Amino acid sequence: MIKISVMYPNKPGVRFDHEYYRTKHLPLIKARMGAGLLYYTIDKGLSSEKPGEPPAYVGMCHLMCDSVESYASSFGPHAQEIVGDIRNFTDVMPVTQISEVVVENSARSAPRETMRV
Amino acid sequence: MIKISVMYPNKPGVRFDHEYYRTKHLPLIKARMGAGLLYYTIDKGLSSEKPGEPPAYVGMCHLMCDSVESYASSFGPHAQEIVGDIRNFTDVMPVTQISEVVVENSARSAPRETMRV
Repeated sequence: MIKISVMYPNKPGVRFDHEYYRTKHLPLIKARMGAGLLYYTIDKGLSSEKPGEPPAYVGMCHLMCDSVESYASSFGPHAQEIVGDIRNFTDVMPVTQISEVVVENSARSAPRETMRV
Repeated sequence: MIKISVMYPNKPGVRFDHEYYRTKHLPLIKARMGAGLLYYTIDKGLSSEKPGEPPAYVGMCHLMCDSVESYASSFGPHAQEIVGDIRNFTDVMPVTQISEVVVENSARSAPRETMRV
């Protein structure tokens, strides 16, 4: 399993509409990617590790997919539409990376592959 | 629920022992935080959004806690020991932030609070 982490850098006075992000942008991604997207998570930045100091990222999402190939084939054809929606909730462009999921959830004893059978 | 994201910046020639991170460092955090840590995830950076380009972060973990207070009270007393272990697997210091978990898992219909009952 892989995870696409989409991280929006924080800055003084940054514009970021968390409501739009949750109710419009991520549902758009889900609708367009279809079965290529296993599930997603959304984070709202609160602070650095020290409460009161600003977070590095104002918002993040993590998209879980079976493989780089399934991500590319399901996201790629809709990339222009999805990226074009970013201006509707923020004025910063995200840092994006693809990671291998080494541990999906430490509280689960069985890996996801087993649980899906 | 909150998420503490610990993100290790990538750089050319970075040292990062993913095996130690998975088998020693995160289990150390879990052991010290006890019930204050609900669960964790581990990511291994593969690339930017474009396969072949380097990822922003060589490795990440996300620690899930009920609240900033439960994180502070369970992690704080062991922070020196845990931070001191970082040199055993890498030569970079992490970017850390605290986020509110807006959506934990989009594939689950019920929020975690309900599922734990």
